[in-house]
Amino acid sequence: MNVTEKSSGSPLSGQSRVVIEHVSPELDGGRFPIKAIPGDVIAVEADIFADGHDYLSARLLYKFIDDATWTETAMTLLVNDRWGASFIAEKQGHYLYTIEAWVDHAASWQHEIHLKVADGQRITSELLAGAQYVDGMLGLAGGTGQGVKGKGKKTKNVVAEETPDVKALREMAALFRDESRYDEAVSVAESDQFTFYVNRYPERRHVTRYGQELGVEVDRARAGFSTWYCLFPRSAAREEGKHGTFRDVEALLPRISGMGFDVLYLPPIHPIGMAHRKGKNNSVVCQPGEPGVPYGIGSPDGGHDAIHPELGTVDDFKHLIAIAANYGMEVAMDLAIQCSPDHPWATEHPEWFKKRPDGTIQYAENPPKKYQDIYPVYFETEDWQNLWDELKRVLLVWASWGVRIVRVDNPHTKPFGFWEWVIAEVKKEYPDMLFLAEAFTKPKVMQELGKRGFAHSYTYYTWRNTKYELEQYMTELTQSEMKYYYRPNFWPTTHDINPYILQTGHEPQFLIRYFLAATLSSNYGIYGPSFELMEYVPFPNKEEYLNSEKYEIRLWDWDKTNKLTYLITLVNRIRHENVALQTTNNLTICQVDDDAIMAYLKTSVDNRLLIVVNTDAYSRRAGVVQVPIWQLGIGNDQYYTVRDLLTGAQYTWQGERNYVELDPYALPMHLFKLEL
Amino acid sequence: MNVTEKSSGSPLSGQSRVVIEHVSPELDGGRFPIKAIPGDVIAVEADIFADGHDYLSARLLYKFIDDATWTETAMTLLVNDRWGASFIAEKQGHYLYTIEAWVDHAASWQHEIHLKVADGQRITSELLAGAQYVDGMLGLAGGTGQGVKGKGKKTKNVVAEETPDVKALREMAALFRDESRYDEAVSVAESDQFTFYVNRYPERRHVTRYGQELGVEVDRARAGFSTWYCLFPRSAAREEGKHGTFRDVEALLPRISGMGFDVLYLPPIHPIGMAHRKGKNNSVVCQPGEPGVPYGIGSPDGGHDAIHPELGTVDDFKHLIAIAANYGMEVAMDLAIQCSPDHPWATEHPEWFKKRPDGTIQYAENPPKKYQDIYPVYFETEDWQNLWDELKRVLLVWASWGVRIVRVDNPHTKPFGFWEWVIAEVKKEYPDMLFLAEAFTKPKVMQELGKRGFAHSYTYYTWRNTKYELEQYMTELTQSEMKYYYRPNFWPTTHDINPYILQTGHEPQFLIRYFLAATLSSNYGIYGPSFELMEYVPFPNKEEYLNSEKYEIRLWDWDKTNKLTYLITLVNRIRHENVALQTTNNLTICQVDDDAIMAYLKTSVDNRLLIVVNTDAYSRRAGVVQVPIWQLGIGNDQYYTVRDLLTGAQYTWQGERNYVELDPYALPMHLFKLEL
Repeated sequence: MNVTEKSSGSPLSGQSRVVIEHVSPELDGGRFPIKAIPGDVIAVEADIFADGHDYLSARLLYKFIDDATWTETAMTLLVNDRWGASFIAEKQGHYLYTIEAWVDHAASWQHEIHLKVADGQRITSELLAGAQYVDGMLGLAGGTGQGVKGKGKKTKNVVAEETPDVKALREMAALFRDESRYDEAVSVAESDQFTFYVNRYPERRHVTRYGQELGVEVDRARAGFSTWYCLFPRSAAREEGKHGTFRDVEALLPRISGMGFDVLYLPPIHPIGMAHRKGKNNSVVCQPGEPGVPYGIGSPDGGHDAIHPELGTVDDFKHLIAIAANYGMEVAMDLAIQCSPDHPWATEHPEWFKKRPDGTIQYAENPPKKYQDIYPVYFETEDWQNLWDELKRVLLVWASWGVRIVRVDNPHTKPFGFWEWVIAEVKKEYPDMLFLAEAFTKPKVMQELGKRGFAHSYTYYTWRNTKYELEQYMTELTQSEMKYYYRPNFWPTTHDINPYILQTGHEPQFLIRYFLAATLSSNYGIYGPSFELMEYVPFPNKEEYLNSEKYEIRLWDWDKTNKLTYLITLVNRIRHENVALQTTNNLTICQVDDDAIMAYLKTSVDNRLLIVVNTDAYSRRAGVVQVPIWQLGIGNDQYYTVRDLLTGAQYTWQGERNYVELDPYALPMHLFKLEL
Repeated sequence: MNVTEKSSGSPLSGQSRVVIEHVSPELDGGRFPIKAIPGDVIAVEADIFADGHDYLSARLLYKFIDDATWTETAMTLLVNDRWGASFIAEKQGHYLYTIEAWVDHAASWQHEIHLKVADGQRITSELLAGAQYVDGMLGLAGGTGQGVKGKGKKTKNVVAEETPDVKALREMAALFRDESRYDEAVSVAESDQFTFYVNRYPERRHVTRYGQELGVEVDRARAGFSTWYCLFPRSAAREEGKHGTFRDVEALLPRISGMGFDVLYLPPIHPIGMAHRKGKNNSVVCQPGEPGVPYGIGSPDGGHDAIHPELGTVDDFKHLIAIAANYGMEVAMDLAIQCSPDHPWATEHPEWFKKRPDGTIQYAENPPKKYQDIYPVYFETEDWQNLWDELKRVLLVWASWGVRIVRVDNPHTKPFGFWEWVIAEVKKEYPDMLFLAEAFTKPKVMQELGKRGFAHSYTYYTWRNTKYELEQYMTELTQSEMKYYYRPNFWPTTHDINPYILQTGHEPQFLIRYFLAATLSSNYGIYGPSFELMEYVPFPNKEEYLNSEKYEIRLWDWDKTNKLTYLITLVNRIRHENVALQTTNNLTICQVDDDAIMAYLKTSVDNRLLIVVNTDAYSRRAGVVQVPIWQLGIGNDQYYTVRDLLTGAQYTWQGERNYVELDPYALPMHLFKLEL
């Protein structure tokens, strides 16, 4: 049902008696939208109450941002003056919602009639008042009542054909005024039919409207469910010493898509500077012929809008995007806002860089460390508006090549205001654009980036190893306000992070870390083929890889398969077949009486999974899982089957408490489908 | 230190990098002020952070609403990007506070200097940058620097006398630029002296200012600490059948103030209507000579701005107010917005009442009950503005008589918007006016009245009897957001409520219910002399009194004393002597291993009380109280003395766990003063 905007009432009138408060979801007083994907149900709640004892009516109003009118749906009283309703965010784009409420005199009247009739009182005078309410409904239904006061929907045809509603209401008004048919009138006044018309034609007087229009940013489906594979294209060649190309990457797509990945993310593919170029293992001495760091962006060949010549041309890159699409994969680029001293900006826009007192450009520092190969961009420049415009232009160039996903390197070292602006600007032209924030920093900074528009965010998952840590973190991500705006993207490793827990190379540990990422978060990624080949040797005493691809070209065995590649392929297939794994917040953590075995339920309509993981990669663990059968609608005495989608094994369980045992050297996890 | 408003920066500039969020206290996005009394410390916190790794500076800005400029105080980083500072709300009226923060480049610079020097780097170039920061400080200090960019305080005298700061800064800038004194320059750059000047003359560039100016409504001291006594003046006479007068009330003041009360609250004192006048025990039949209900306001003698002739004249009432003041007592009136059919408004302003379809005025109903003696005022009237003005006029008339406290009867059946408006309007002319909301209804409605401006609110205390209920309720009142805006006023009984728990007349129960009210809440009251004389006989099956004073004149024994009057007198004296009992939110509930013994700490600077109550009025109970000695600064092995201010008994305790035993038939409570 559509209603015209601000159709009635005035919240400033002293006659408006309803209060609307504590609307949820509402981020920072309405400052930021919540996030959704098409088809998501947006459940809205609010405290709604008035003085006195009258009945209230409340409506959730929502619209796609371009719609001229609001759609509305009735809110229902839940408990303790809390009301709720929901709507479906059907399509990509921006939705708005707000609330209107008013004192429902007709409903209050019917309630009082019930009490008086039950008390044996004669309600002749009350019926006359009721007739006036019916007159009002009649006006809204398109008929003409007597003394209609409510300012409702504009009636298009005052002399309308008599609709069934108009006819019924006209008869009802007459009945209430006809003392000779008193018993019949009382019966109708008490009837569900009267209630029905009260709700269909509400007398909206002195309406209170919530002071905010709250937003929902709806991204395309892949924002909610995606499976990432990161590779360095220069390591895609199959021959020692050869620089990989986009063509070489194309040849790897059967393997990568065969494992079930749908986003191919490439670290920067731009020309690499020569000035202070770094060598192998981040050496400050670069040997002739060393390829440099892809993050040292910019050379005489161009900057952020150019392609590194050894990888190919812009057309080659577009060709890769097209071939990847054939495999159901998208290509994601990497935005690192920093420059080699050779970047064109360094000469064309010296004002975008901070000067030292001697007039030279300030290179990057993290005292006492110095990074002479990198110039950070100076966002406090007086010329910030041109800088912002240029960065927007770069993103639009990438979009023109066909890129719709951008991973942003260290967004937390650039102003939040810039991200909010540039993401909104780019999405105006390319609404299907998604941004992933690569920020590993303080919690509130990471949260803020989510609020400002990043569709995805890296997380602390990489360092959450124990059952306790994982349960705490999952509770924060899926139960706190973060669930509304922060879309976690779980990575067991990245090209920057070789976490201590995987530096042993212990195979069960890789299986566990992979499996947790892929089943706890609907968005996850791996850095390949390093991860699936279980590379683990660290740069000494660091959470970095020895001989990292960031500093050299690596020759990988792109044909190798192992237990982990088998698990990856299987789990990604299961993720595609089970919608419960395609969203993150549908998580229920289950109690297990073992401090290493973690169990969690993932549920959606018609798809119920119970996942059990032994987080101890070295010991066989056993315990009793407490299945929340009440939540699943399973009776205490009822048998139910759990079938492990990983192995095909089936168990018949009963009641809440069921035994599990997991040997990390066999398979440290169950992925049960519940069959009732 | 005063700063001019909005002296610098622009939150809309792309160069502003700091985020200020989640300010606390902040009610409903800044919609409502918090409450305080003069001298209260207002502790403000906020999430404050920026991109990158720079140091930040943050200032809490506050001012009395009439002040032209803001006062500021530095905020300090607490933990996890949470910052805090506080200010004192010194006087009655309205304060505002907000926050400004910016990237502190000079402090960041000093931090980096430390790291580089420790790393053995030569920082000649850095010192030149430092000299530029010192130039900026010099400009703010009233000297002239080189290339000052910051737009700070207006410098009054550009050619000023050289202050010590100017001299020191000028020397510092020169030193930093003098390579021949490198070591000395490094030493000064790292010094506390430099830090001191950074904080005294902050370079405020690209300042972020919080988007809200938040309010503190500071009421006079009695809003925080008051002791109420309610009586019906018509029952103040000492002779059977005689209507009490204000003069009779004056004669009772020695008793009432002697017990330690400082607010004398009188139910309505206006002319009482004759139409449908109620008789004894709420009878619909009124015998000739029955006095009627004081809440049936209005007769040919006048309405809300008139005095019931049998009580006295306006001058008599003013006389009572003056005499009460001599006893340190204030007189509170009762605002009940409803009319007898004989009220002047019923004829002069029929539009302020709802009409039935037959044109008659709608009397009050709570279906199926009818109250023909009362016309409710119709706040949805089209003439609402004149109605509001008239009610404001009534309050101003009362204020002109000298009344500064108004208890409002059933405010929850009148619009919230009206209360917000009328309280603010009256306080414009009488800023020391206090309003008590007599609303016993749903939680959110009661809370909203507090937010809209009521200084005090009745509570559910009257029905919170068990230790569990009391602890839950006290936690809600003193630990939730309610602590900022809801000032509880605890009443064990009222003239409307004879709670079931006291209907036995069991003396220990009266002692317990009294004592809990007087020590859990700094504001409390009793309905006397009914309560102190332990009247208990109910109207059958109701929480009301038999032969209630609402419907008849009672003759009381105003000379009687008993164990309860002794306790009241003693406790009120203790409340006056111990500041820890003069505020409500300074409560810490202590664990006791008995489900009836309740223990709580009340602490303020230099005054620490431990209160222990046996809530079981029928059994001797014993248990171990867990004293939070860590919070009191008492060591584990340290002896400390607890002295019972009620009996003079002293105990020497040690450690956390200490035994107590309370016999309700002796005295069911301890009021310990802790002496260290």
